[in-house]
Amino acid sequence: MPLLVMKFGGTSVADLDRIRNAAGKVRREVERGYDVIVIVSAMSGKTNELVGWVEQTSPMFDAREYDAVVSSGENVTAGLMALTLQEMDVPARSWQGWQVPLKTTSAHSAARIEEIPRANIDAKFAEGMRVAVVAGFQGISPEGRITTLGRGGSDTTAVAFAAAFGAERCDIYTDVDGVYTTDPRIEDKARKLDKIAFEEMLELASLGAKVLQTRSVELAMRYKVRLRVLSSFEENTENSGTLVCDEEDIMEKNVVSGVAYVRDEAKMTLISVADRPGIAAAIFGPLSDAGVNVDMIVQNISEEGRTDMTFSCPVNQVARAEKAMQDAKEKGEINFHDLVADTDVAKVSVVGIGMRSHAGVASQMFKALSSEGINIKVITTSEIKISVLIDRKYMELAVQALHDAFGLDKAA
Amino acid sequence: MPLLVMKFGGTSVADLDRIRNAAGKVRREVERGYDVIVIVSAMSGKTNELVGWVEQTSPMFDAREYDAVVSSGENVTAGLMALTLQEMDVPARSWQGWQVPLKTTSAHSAARIEEIPRANIDAKFAEGMRVAVVAGFQGISPEGRITTLGRGGSDTTAVAFAAAFGAERCDIYTDVDGVYTTDPRIEDKARKLDKIAFEEMLELASLGAKVLQTRSVELAMRYKVRLRVLSSFEENTENSGTLVCDEEDIMEKNVVSGVAYVRDEAKMTLISVADRPGIAAAIFGPLSDAGVNVDMIVQNISEEGRTDMTFSCPVNQVARAEKAMQDAKEKGEINFHDLVADTDVAKVSVVGIGMRSHAGVASQMFKALSSEGINIKVITTSEIKISVLIDRKYMELAVQALHDAFGLDKAA
Repeated sequence: MPLLVMKFGGTSVADLDRIRNAAGKVRREVERGYDVIVIVSAMSGKTNELVGWVEQTSPMFDAREYDAVVSSGENVTAGLMALTLQEMDVPARSWQGWQVPLKTTSAHSAARIEEIPRANIDAKFAEGMRVAVVAGFQGISPEGRITTLGRGGSDTTAVAFAAAFGAERCDIYTDVDGVYTTDPRIEDKARKLDKIAFEEMLELASLGAKVLQTRSVELAMRYKVRLRVLSSFEENTENSGTLVCDEEDIMEKNVVSGVAYVRDEAKMTLISVADRPGIAAAIFGPLSDAGVNVDMIVQNISEEGRTDMTFSCPVNQVARAEKAMQDAKEKGEINFHDLVADTDVAKVSVVGIGMRSHAGVASQMFKALSSEGINIKVITTSEIKISVLIDRKYMELAVQALHDAFGLDKAA
Repeated sequence: MPLLVMKFGGTSVADLDRIRNAAGKVRREVERGYDVIVIVSAMSGKTNELVGWVEQTSPMFDAREYDAVVSSGENVTAGLMALTLQEMDVPARSWQGWQVPLKTTSAHSAARIEEIPRANIDAKFAEGMRVAVVAGFQGISPEGRITTLGRGGSDTTAVAFAAAFGAERCDIYTDVDGVYTTDPRIEDKARKLDKIAFEEMLELASLGAKVLQTRSVELAMRYKVRLRVLSSFEENTENSGTLVCDEEDIMEKNVVSGVAYVRDEAKMTLISVADRPGIAAAIFGPLSDAGVNVDMIVQNISEEGRTDMTFSCPVNQVARAEKAMQDAKEKGEINFHDLVADTDVAKVSVVGIGMRSHAGVASQMFKALSSEGINIKVITTSEIKISVLIDRKYMELAVQALHDAFGLDKAA
């Protein structure tokens, strides 16, 4: 029988009524002839509550115990979803991560999936079970302890099951009806995309459009899993939501697909760094060790053996970054005159696989920002993305100007 | 190293402060030189919430899914307790039922413990772990699914661990400071017992003094586990609480140890039953099949081949009992003229192993009731217990009169 994976996020299973609503969508797919693997998150708020308890109990918590505690929310939803489906006369049962078993690495609270053996679940499908309800976000380590995949990890669970079971599609049900050209709260002409390429989704996800966990998109791309994002709160048709798919499956496309932003960035500049081979490693090694998520990196032209090095990171990591740099200086690992932090910047990016074959996107972007009087502080580019740092106060204006300049309110 | 089992009930781990309080008691035992196995319940209210969700979702629920859902509360407490102990520099880790593994039968929601292999936990003790925190109430079936042991099952988990690991003692921490001669809410002269024999505790537990799950006492008696009931909310000494132990360990004892009661009983009488061999089985088989918990049974002397049969059961099972009897009559399995239910009765019992060697306890009991003008409707006796059914309105009076008559306010 053809197989679908359907994943329901926390708001989609927030209470018994919503679980019933979600189960109705599952039943419909069963009636259409699909076997279904359902991946569920914890009821919304539950995981935060559990995380709060762990953090209050032990600020530097043992990640193995963290995982044992926070994974429990998904177990509740999985059982309730199976019971709801049974009430609808759909043969269903629940599986916790260790029962599948969903095997992961031992990297507690950020484990990676290693293997999903099909035997246990396939045996139940063969006996007539139509729906396997699996607790998302969790797995089991080689040591037999419970692991979790990081916040949002149920998306990754869903894609991994879709890959392992050769699912026709992986539907991610959430509280938005798809992926938009930009945040509709900022630009009311934002338009829902029918399709988006994996590569674009990856850039949009990591740039702050938090519809899907980044790793789930990477995994989908690697295993060619057709991934659909759609709303739990609408009557869905075959064409609802946004399909995240291979570039080749998208016939018509704009050069730019979306405008993304990250509000709370900081720009840090190390002034007059002694420039020598290995200096980048000497700077970014300690930052990484200190848990600073460095994003953009720009190095000025070297003059007389010294250079300025600029990087960006989330605002709430500035203190940590400053300490790491000061410590490295004191140890003699690096040498710089000053460290200047600008904590009032935001990042705005345009993303689109069309850029690969279209020149002039960058200049069009810079012109649009300039005509609004917005000064660009840092620029980085990749094959399918151009990002700039600007003053935070211009962020909304920049998003709107770029959305307009690239005609994103109109379909290709 | 000597080993203790310490069990904390729901009110003892109701929030993070109480978990910290409980962990303090564990640390103290570790400092005294014990290795400790801690059994935890769910935070108070959590299991009821989960049971409510299951029952709302599916009135005739699949017990396997019920178990998967309701067992999750204990997982949370186990992890939080391990983290709290770690914060106190006590080497600890949590174990869920399937990780031990605590092997049970497949009788979901009322499973019985079959085996607790020691290897996994012993290996960690050998590595320097001082406390194994185990989620109570739950186990794993031969099919690899989660089972639960019935409400209050964490007591049974605790005693089973104490037996399997040869613990010096099994301390059950709860919200009362021990076992009393009767309910202090009814008789303010009720006195805490320092010691009570297993057999007495068993009668008191099953008669409604709900301090311990009955099965845990049975198990403790079979494996000679010294069981202590004490309060989480007091500073405990070596002699706190009540020790449930072998009869031989109690030097001084009253003839009667306690007065127990069950408020909401019903007395049912089948009038003029055709008396023949096998008639009791023909009556009580269908009642048992219908889930009626028959307690007392009295059969009148047979006259001309017919007899009256009286039994008691909880008030809320009367309708079920009536239907079962009516059905059996229609099928011709039994024959009676009428079925009369008296739903306004209560059961009062005196319990004491001293009765074995003392005559006259029954007559002393009946005299005490009679002098208060309380009419006795049904009497049953066992070796260490005498129970009577009386009008419910006299229940408190009867408890007080008996407590007084047997001098229970004074130690032996």
